[in-house]
Amino acid sequence: MRPAHAVAAAERAERDPLCRFPLGFRGAVASAAIKKPGRTDLALIACEGGATAAGMFTRNLVCAAPVTLSRRHLTESRGHAHALLLNSGCANAATGPEGLARTVELLDAVAVALDVPAESVLSNSTGVIGVQLPIDRMLPRIPELVAHLADGPLRPVAQAIMTTDTYPKVAAVELVHEGRRGLVSGISKGAGMIHPDLALHGGPPQATTITAVMTDAELAPDELRGHLAEGVERSFHRISIDGDTSTNDAVYAMASGAAGRFPPEMVRAAFRAVLRELALLVVRDGEGFERGLEVRVTGARTAADALAVARTVAMSMLVRCAVTGGDPNWGRILAAAGRAGVPLDLEDLTLDVGGTMLFRDGGPADTPLADRERVFREPLVHVHLDLGAGDASEEFFSCGLTTEYVRLNADYTT
Amino acid sequence: MRPAHAVAAAERAERDPLCRFPLGFRGAVASAAIKKPGRTDLALIACEGGATAAGMFTRNLVCAAPVTLSRRHLTESRGHAHALLLNSGCANAATGPEGLARTVELLDAVAVALDVPAESVLSNSTGVIGVQLPIDRMLPRIPELVAHLADGPLRPVAQAIMTTDTYPKVAAVELVHEGRRGLVSGISKGAGMIHPDLALHGGPPQATTITAVMTDAELAPDELRGHLAEGVERSFHRISIDGDTSTNDAVYAMASGAAGRFPPEMVRAAFRAVLRELALLVVRDGEGFERGLEVRVTGARTAADALAVARTVAMSMLVRCAVTGGDPNWGRILAAAGRAGVPLDLEDLTLDVGGTMLFRDGGPADTPLADRERVFREPLVHVHLDLGAGDASEEFFSCGLTTEYVRLNADYTT
Repeated sequence: MRPAHAVAAAERAERDPLCRFPLGFRGAVASAAIKKPGRTDLALIACEGGATAAGMFTRNLVCAAPVTLSRRHLTESRGHAHALLLNSGCANAATGPEGLARTVELLDAVAVALDVPAESVLSNSTGVIGVQLPIDRMLPRIPELVAHLADGPLRPVAQAIMTTDTYPKVAAVELVHEGRRGLVSGISKGAGMIHPDLALHGGPPQATTITAVMTDAELAPDELRGHLAEGVERSFHRISIDGDTSTNDAVYAMASGAAGRFPPEMVRAAFRAVLRELALLVVRDGEGFERGLEVRVTGARTAADALAVARTVAMSMLVRCAVTGGDPNWGRILAAAGRAGVPLDLEDLTLDVGGTMLFRDGGPADTPLADRERVFREPLVHVHLDLGAGDASEEFFSCGLTTEYVRLNADYTT
Repeated sequence: MRPAHAVAAAERAERDPLCRFPLGFRGAVASAAIKKPGRTDLALIACEGGATAAGMFTRNLVCAAPVTLSRRHLTESRGHAHALLLNSGCANAATGPEGLARTVELLDAVAVALDVPAESVLSNSTGVIGVQLPIDRMLPRIPELVAHLADGPLRPVAQAIMTTDTYPKVAAVELVHEGRRGLVSGISKGAGMIHPDLALHGGPPQATTITAVMTDAELAPDELRGHLAEGVERSFHRISIDGDTSTNDAVYAMASGAAGRFPPEMVRAAFRAVLRELALLVVRDGEGFERGLEVRVTGARTAADALAVARTVAMSMLVRCAVTGGDPNWGRILAAAGRAGVPLDLEDLTLDVGGTMLFRDGGPADTPLADRERVFREPLVHVHLDLGAGDASEEFFSCGLTTEYVRLNADYTT
């Protein structure tokens, strides 16, 4: 059975009038037979008036050709872009100089078709690693994409970049200020190889999830970078599906300015909300998803301690198997906390799941088995550890590890 | 079908005359109905003349009562012991002061029955976390164990501590010097929650796998600690099944001295060989085992770099799924290497699997699909990355991630 949140997400992508391109942006999709013929696998987002732009890219050193090139373009353009070309079906990673040359050729074709500088075109790819991009089938689609650019719903673009995703991922928040309206909206994809570890382009070196957030609010490049970095830290850096940081992860942000300026705090909050919603849509579509795992750690000495414990528990394979089985094997949660590299005093620690106390005063709480079983069988299992050591808190999101995840990934290329 | 190495391991445990207690050691097993009634779940190893002893224990801060107590006893006794009591079916971890009190009571009973000081009895437990040890059923078995102590094969003891293991794990190396013979032999258990991270007792803070290595060679406590620490570093610290460091992991070493002194290099080599064989027996019995994954990294700048890359590749869930599927999706290997936190130059890196070149000169090697598929379908998949950056090398051992692993662990307590 399809989880309720998946049905809701798909319906929202279909119907929510806010989930559209902000003013100044248009999009188009095409089928270039990179995936199975007949499915859309190529998408272009354009801001023909030009946008301030920022990007955060994977810190994986085996990074894909489009990541290398997008990073370079954002530096050369000092944070401006006219377009973002995305494809699914092929990651163009570990493809050497040939892979880079093919992306250059594609982006040049987009620049020519839009009549914009080459360095103002960004791109990304998702799919199998180590396979060259079939540009012979892609290049003829570029003029077609440009000819079909249109405003309207984000869903077709979100759909074109899906791989093992089971629903398109879109989110939007409206900006309203003194009677004027603006929009922050975005798309994302990702269901496996998800453990984002992203750094701002041009920043210090800091999955495949690909995300693009657009706004018609007016933002200087530095403002946009700030909103992006802060929003990503509280969203994509708080999810993991399998611990495998991808070669292609990127989050793009573009601001057309077409709706004018809005109060910075309002825009910042909208970026945070949209990025958080997109990140949750990704982790709740983890390959083989059956049940979510959401870990909150409070009472830590520092936020770093809280995050280390939350992440270690959320990523523990044994905790994730227990979540799948609806198995109240809470000892595994403590065992994971104990190896997080954070000082713990078991006497001070409490563990509850879904509000049901399981461990306190250094020993198991006397909770009836039926209650323990119930909280492990919720669609989203909420683990809460209080370390009793301070005031800092953090959270981390994952999902149960399922036989379907293994099945999907044991037989992916062949 | 049972893997060939599992059949061989079980046969060796049954038949190899070397896989017995060294001089000075005796053992006995009993059934205390901690696991299913009728299966042996309690084992005692005794060296009634007294042995020098050492232990390495999990660095997990949520460590089990018997680990806390064994660590304390080894410090109090300055590295001497008379006995080791082991049980399966219950880990006695996260059980608070009550858990500690129960272990104290058990070990006191052993000390009384053997007429030795309390601090010369060590112990460990393996099984479910957060459940109290059923000492009412265990205490009456202690005199029975002592009465039945006998020399002979290690298999019954190895079998009594099995949980999800599919075969008993024993290993032995004979020492021969100037016509005299000695023996280093050991037992181990472990199939899940395996990611050993162990520290010497009394040393700086450094799964459940429980291992005991015995020898009749004469060794001072410091020598024994040295052989143990060095051997564990090259064996149990090179394996992982699921990344979940246990609350109970421990490796014990005991030397009776009954066979006299042997050249230190010979004993050291025997400890290394026995510990390595036991660690490989554990990782090749990973829960749901279908295929092994062995990663060798050469050409690294430092051994730490080599180990970081080898461990990251061997533990990648996506690489491990590909191994299970016999899927030549080698891009995942590079993607894992790229997130290991080690500087890499893709131009200098080569990747071969089972001797078949897959990546060199910055791009995919032109290897026929049939060859790529074949090397991913061997019983043990041998990944070899050369970083082209130096002379250091390391290796790490894991196994494919299977649907059976998930199934076993999604439904373990219930």
